Amino acid sequence: MDYYPAPGRNHLFVPGPTNVPEPILRAMNRSNEDHRSPAFPKLSKSVIEDVKQIFGTTAATSFIFPTTGTGAWESALTNVLSPGDKIISFLIGQFSLLWIDQMKRLNFDVDVIESEWGAGADLALLKKKLSADYARSIKAVCIVHNETSTGVTNDLAAVRRILDGARHPALLLVDGVSSIGALDFQMDEWKVDVALTGSQKALSLPTGLGIVCASPRALEAAKTAKSLRVFFDWADYLKFYKLGSIWPYTPSSQMLYGLRASLDLILKEEGLHNVIARHHRLGEATRKAVHAWGLKLCTQKAEWNSDTVTAVVVPSHIDSGDIVKIAWKKYNLSLGVGLNKIAGKVFRIGHLGNLNELQLLGALAGVELALREVGYPVTLGSGVAAAQAHLQRATPLITSRI
Amino acid sequence: MDYYPAPGRNHLFVPGPTNVPEPILRAMNRSNEDHRSPAFPKLSKSVIEDVKQIFGTTAATSFIFPTTGTGAWESALTNVLSPGDKIISFLIGQFSLLWIDQMKRLNFDVDVIESEWGAGADLALLKKKLSADYARSIKAVCIVHNETSTGVTNDLAAVRRILDGARHPALLLVDGVSSIGALDFQMDEWKVDVALTGSQKALSLPTGLGIVCASPRALEAAKTAKSLRVFFDWADYLKFYKLGSIWPYTPSSQMLYGLRASLDLILKEEGLHNVIARHHRLGEATRKAVHAWGLKLCTQKAEWNSDTVTAVVVPSHIDSGDIVKIAWKKYNLSLGVGLNKIAGKVFRIGHLGNLNELQLLGALAGVELALREVGYPVTLGSGVAAAQAHLQRATPLITSRI
Amino acid sequence: MDYYPAPGRNHLFVPGPTNVPEPILRAMNRSNEDHRSPAFPKLSKSVIEDVKQIFGTTAATSFIFPTTGTGAWESALTNVLSPGDKIISFLIGQFSLLWIDQMKRLNFDVDVIESEWGAGADLALLKKKLSADYARSIKAVCIVHNETSTGVTNDLAAVRRILDGARHPALLLVDGVSSIGALDFQMDEWKVDVALTGSQKALSLPTGLGIVCASPRALEAAKTAKSLRVFFDWADYLKFYKLGSIWPYTPSSQMLYGLRASLDLILKEEGLHNVIARHHRLGEATRKAVHAWGLKLCTQKAEWNSDTVTAVVVPSHIDSGDIVKIAWKKYNLSLGVGLNKIAGKVFRIGHLGNLNELQLLGALAGVELALREVGYPVTLGSGVAAAQAHLQRATPLITSRI
Amino acid sequence: MDYYPAPGRNHLFVPGPTNVPEPILRAMNRSNEDHRSPAFPKLSKSVIEDVKQIFGTTAATSFIFPTTGTGAWESALTNVLSPGDKIISFLIGQFSLLWIDQMKRLNFDVDVIESEWGAGADLALLKKKLSADYARSIKAVCIVHNETSTGVTNDLAAVRRILDGARHPALLLVDGVSSIGALDFQMDEWKVDVALTGSQKALSLPTGLGIVCASPRALEAAKTAKSLRVFFDWADYLKFYKLGSIWPYTPSSQMLYGLRASLDLILKEEGLHNVIARHHRLGEATRKAVHAWGLKLCTQKAEWNSDTVTAVVVPSHIDSGDIVKIAWKKYNLSLGVGLNKIAGKVFRIGHLGNLNELQLLGALAGVELALREVGYPVTLGSGVAAAQAHLQRATPLITSRI
Repeated sequence: MDYYPAPGRNHLFVPGPTNVPEPILRAMNRSNEDHRSPAFPKLSKSVIEDVKQIFGTTAATSFIFPTTGTGAWESALTNVLSPGDKIISFLIGQFSLLWIDQMKRLNFDVDVIESEWGAGADLALLKKKLSADYARSIKAVCIVHNETSTGVTNDLAAVRRILDGARHPALLLVDGVSSIGALDFQMDEWKVDVALTGSQKALSLPTGLGIVCASPRALEAAKTAKSLRVFFDWADYLKFYKLGSIWPYTPSSQMLYGLRASLDLILKEEGLHNVIARHHRLGEATRKAVHAWGLKLCTQKAEWNSDTVTAVVVPSHIDSGDIVKIAWKKYNLSLGVGLNKIAGKVFRIGHLGNLNELQLLGALAGVELALREVGYPVTLGSGVAAAQAHLQRATPLITSRI
Repeated sequence: MDYYPAPGRNHLFVPGPTNVPEPILRAMNRSNEDHRSPAFPKLSKSVIEDVKQIFGTTAATSFIFPTTGTGAWESALTNVLSPGDKIISFLIGQFSLLWIDQMKRLNFDVDVIESEWGAGADLALLKKKLSADYARSIKAVCIVHNETSTGVTNDLAAVRRILDGARHPALLLVDGVSSIGALDFQMDEWKVDVALTGSQKALSLPTGLGIVCASPRALEAAKTAKSLRVFFDWADYLKFYKLGSIWPYTPSSQMLYGLRASLDLILKEEGLHNVIARHHRLGEATRKAVHAWGLKLCTQKAEWNSDTVTAVVVPSHIDSGDIVKIAWKKYNLSLGVGLNKIAGKVFRIGHLGNLNELQLLGALAGVELALREVGYPVTLGSGVAAAQAHLQRATPLITSRI
Repeated sequence: MDYYPAPGRNHLFVPGPTNVPEPILRAMNRSNEDHRSPAFPKLSKSVIEDVKQIFGTTAATSFIFPTTGTGAWESALTNVLSPGDKIISFLIGQFSLLWIDQMKRLNFDVDVIESEWGAGADLALLKKKLSADYARSIKAVCIVHNETSTGVTNDLAAVRRILDGARHPALLLVDGVSSIGALDFQMDEWKVDVALTGSQKALSLPTGLGIVCASPRALEAAKTAKSLRVFFDWADYLKFYKLGSIWPYTPSSQMLYGLRASLDLILKEEGLHNVIARHHRLGEATRKAVHAWGLKLCTQKAEWNSDTVTAVVVPSHIDSGDIVKIAWKKYNLSLGVGLNKIAGKVFRIGHLGNLNELQLLGALAGVELALREVGYPVTLGSGVAAAQAHLQRATPLITSRI
Repeated sequence: MDYYPAPGRNHLFVPGPTNVPEPILRAMNRSNEDHRSPAFPKLSKSVIEDVKQIFGTTAATSFIFPTTGTGAWESALTNVLSPGDKIISFLIGQFSLLWIDQMKRLNFDVDVIESEWGAGADLALLKKKLSADYARSIKAVCIVHNETSTGVTNDLAAVRRILDGARHPALLLVDGVSSIGALDFQMDEWKVDVALTGSQKALSLPTGLGIVCASPRALEAAKTAKSLRVFFDWADYLKFYKLGSIWPYTPSSQMLYGLRASLDLILKEEGLHNVIARHHRLGEATRKAVHAWGLKLCTQKAEWNSDTVTAVVVPSHIDSGDIVKIAWKKYNLSLGVGLNKIAGKVFRIGHLGNLNELQLLGALAGVELALREVGYPVTLGSGVAAAQAHLQRATPLITSRI
């Protein structure tokens, strides 16, 4: 029996953890096995190799840590930087804030470029700072690709152009937790040095894997980086990669079988290109619904619109937390609350992972009901209709069923 | 990997099989066990006893056959009737038709009372026939409680009143396949002699259990009924009930654990009364949507409206099969086609089992999209809005979350 | 929580239901789906076709009923015979007895050829009866391939030779419940007309499928057979086979996915030939253990030895039921009791399905412990050692790991 | 389909990961959920509280990290120590070696007390060193309770007595990865300051949780410890404990439900006392088998015998790796190899977690077969018999089945 049972399925529209589809649940439904058996590397190598496709890289080396996104952050930073190293980081919302907090606690010298919550990274200021850095003292630029708290996607290609324009050698570290596997991500093309994600987002797995890809430059930097690290050290992994036994300590075989299933769903069954198109379609549909409701996005400009999460600003007399509460209490709909500065002011609709059009429309219908419950005079069906109109145009036939 | 994969969940809105909720999947996720162990009867007895609650009976004896609804039909008929026995049966749609076909092939003398598809059983004619049966030659009245092909629910209390009014001793046999566990069912109060259902409908289990309840009068009739039967014979079960080992042949332990979980969800977590209210709420919402779309129900009068399945008539220039096809091909929405006489003319939305408001609204949004795809000029969001308005009023807070 | 929990795994050594391996549990771990979708026949057709391989037939037509072995028996009989038809059937143990009971209740005129329990079918008497049947009034010969209660395997090739020798046209009906998929079975070669099995035996699935294969002659006989039947009627299946939608009523999609996985394990991963060799190996090992314990088989001659179940006779001062009880209560080992005539006198070790050498050795060690508990002075390890010696010689390397 | 399929179950006798029992698999068979919902803390708090019972503590605070044992080590060290701190650590095998390697890389000043592999910690030397430490410069004593590579269990009560005898304030840090939940562990009584374990050992869960308990003294030390830490920082957890939302970053809900099920099995169904007794029984049985085979334990004295893993020394002309290989290739038996210094010289039988007598006996029979395959002239059945004799005496009836 569950703790807070309700009939029917939970409508999970937080921006992660996301829905775990049945093929993944099936793949994970197994007892433990000996990860030191001659057989285990076959699975291990297949996922270590194939996961790179969702990062858009062939050049990088991947590390699959038994950890979360927070651990992946720590692995990214400590493997390429030394205490005291100067880094630039953008503060545009709660998750970039938390990463910056981590950077500071790990004794890096963080130059924070802050934007209003809802705006993207201030790239003009980055340009200025890089140009002024004659001494090349800036060792890394750290950026969150998709800020989950505000629904803002940063333009990584532009970041690369600025770095290249300034001929600046700083490493580029990217948090792709709520983007990789859902949004277009081109690690090699954008010359990202370290990119990372977590299993419970676009991959639609349970929490438990922090996946880090490191470019050849990053691997080189790791050789001299002085930050202390053991659990998160790439060197141990590289040693076991060479030995062929892959894992310096015990991995979760269930999570790896799940990852294999997830990659099969994304790469083989649906196709990465289609996955990204689907996320764009669902993102657009959601934004059209918000507009139909007469509400505003937290995201300040369309260029920053996120296709994985939409943060919606509520009128000032309404507490967005009440919307989230009633949605859960009456309709078994899980939405994201506003965090920190924007607590009470926005609620969030996650639309990433293994998800389809009608699931989203059901959730949007639920948001309308919740809005009405808290006194916002939304026209029932209005957002749904706007989203439907978009989806009808944009949705292709399901490939396997044509 | 699945055969016809699609991202996200399948929206299963056929009128059975229904969605299997996770607690039931979990309960069934187990290897086999020895059904002759001293332990097994504990589970067996608990489900044999508790399943009677959804039939609304304490007086009847339940039999849980490893079969389907078709097998349960056969068990009901052959245990209380002898070849050549005269029975009255109502033909109001595809499933009553199939049951009548079975009756004929089992050599009963069936007096068929036919209605138009979309109408309920012609109870006036029943009354006339019973009154005219001075010889009491009619041994049984057989009726489908909820005709799944047309979305028609018959009034069983009225049937009982007619039988009692005529002081007719005919047995009352009821197919409750798409009603029991979802609609109000009062076996004892309505003096139903044999009632039956299948596991894959309101119980939200996989197919595989045909559950039959027999009144004391039915058990008495079984002692002299001459229809040949072995697999479906109640007598073998009664013998093993007495022995305490319950099963005359091997049951599916997985299905019994699943049934235990299903009964717990219905009786303990949600409460049978709330389950029935939820089905009524979802049925009403669906009908309001159909009305908003400018379409008609196959059900001809409101008194016959079914809270488990809604059959929708499409304009004559549209083939309802096309709606079902495109819904599945583009939106991963499974609807029911029109059967037999009404093939091409109606499609069906099943709304029974473990299901909630937003799941239904997502499906209704999908129906709207499918209608548009086949050229019916529905206003997007119109049906959703009508359903939302009803659901907002009618839906209580989830008990466990208040 | 389970009803009678115990640490570690249950050692399931009853002769069915058998252990369900993880790949099958995974395949079945899924919600329901619409069996009328355009997609479903792909799965259906694949299992209907491939299941014939374990029957050793390409000529026959298979029917997969949502029922048990008892239902499969009923389907076999009622589809090819008419009430009053004369049939010969062999009574050699509890399951042949039950089948004969069914035959009688279905109004066939059964000529029972009885043997002592522990002996095989009396084929000499069959020969005599067939030869004497100048009128060809015997319509069918019914035989249990492997009598699960006594561990006796009958020689079906010999039965065929006798029928052919007598040029007798009687149909040959075979219960292969505890043989097909584990023992060599050659339906085409032996000209078996109807053969049947259940899912919970060699296929290592949950209970719930009764699988019947019918030869062309049997299909022909079915056209005129007058036994009443609906649920078990082949004609309905044949009609839906032609329509392409396969199922006359709702199947269990979970069981069909499970069957697909089971057939993959048997036919693709291990290979049917290897599966049969494994069963022979485990059967031999068990018999060597029994011999080492100083006990006797219930099976009276080696030619009847069963490779799927071993029935062991205990000394007269011991109640075999006590062995079964203590094995379950102290060691979580599930053995089969002696049935009917041999209750208290034999216990049974099932060794069929998805099972390997060390599982069996663990169980044999457990039998030794149980024997000691009831006062039989077995030398601990003696049976295990005898079985080990055989297995060391007879076990090949696991193909996938060479 | 699996990568290296084999019929029957894998016999998993490595000393972790261990067998995951069905109740845990069932508990974990679920999609993701919102860990920020009002409901989630109920589950979280229950496991955070109850897990302390297997540590033998009411005074300590528990932290459940989404990591492995290696991460738990890092958390233990970095939360209470500052770079440069002097610590004593015992090197008695591969896992103590790896922990010491971690300590050094984290810049602690490690005074290593080395023993032969197979011996326990040299407590006499500890006593001497503590007595000589007038300056109280030793900040911590770190010890592995059960060294998994050699099958050696250290006497923690003795360590405490020595610390107390020397009135030394050093913190006591204990790796209980292969002990806690299987061996008697008394954190409060032994005044252990930090104790830790991983989910994939005695708890019989998948890998993925590193569980750390900290005494009030350890929590106090954490306030001033200067080691950099974010992911592994207790302070973040304590902050969220206070807030009531428990998790500073996303936990794996599946693992927490699994932990709940594991604790229920240990604490409610079997009883911790019985779990420990069972491990002792299985350990003794294994050692008796080794003796019967004429082989020696790696463990040099009986006082160090481990009840969770037995390391067996093979004759010098045999490569223990060959035993492990053939066991896996022919019998689907997974044993542990010898590590590092003792590679090729020992193999290991893990006997911890959710496991019973007959599972062990099957594995011991498999070890005998493997020994024979590599040319060691073991008498088949000899070890099994010795183990059986012990188990018959020592095994109680299963509580739920008396």
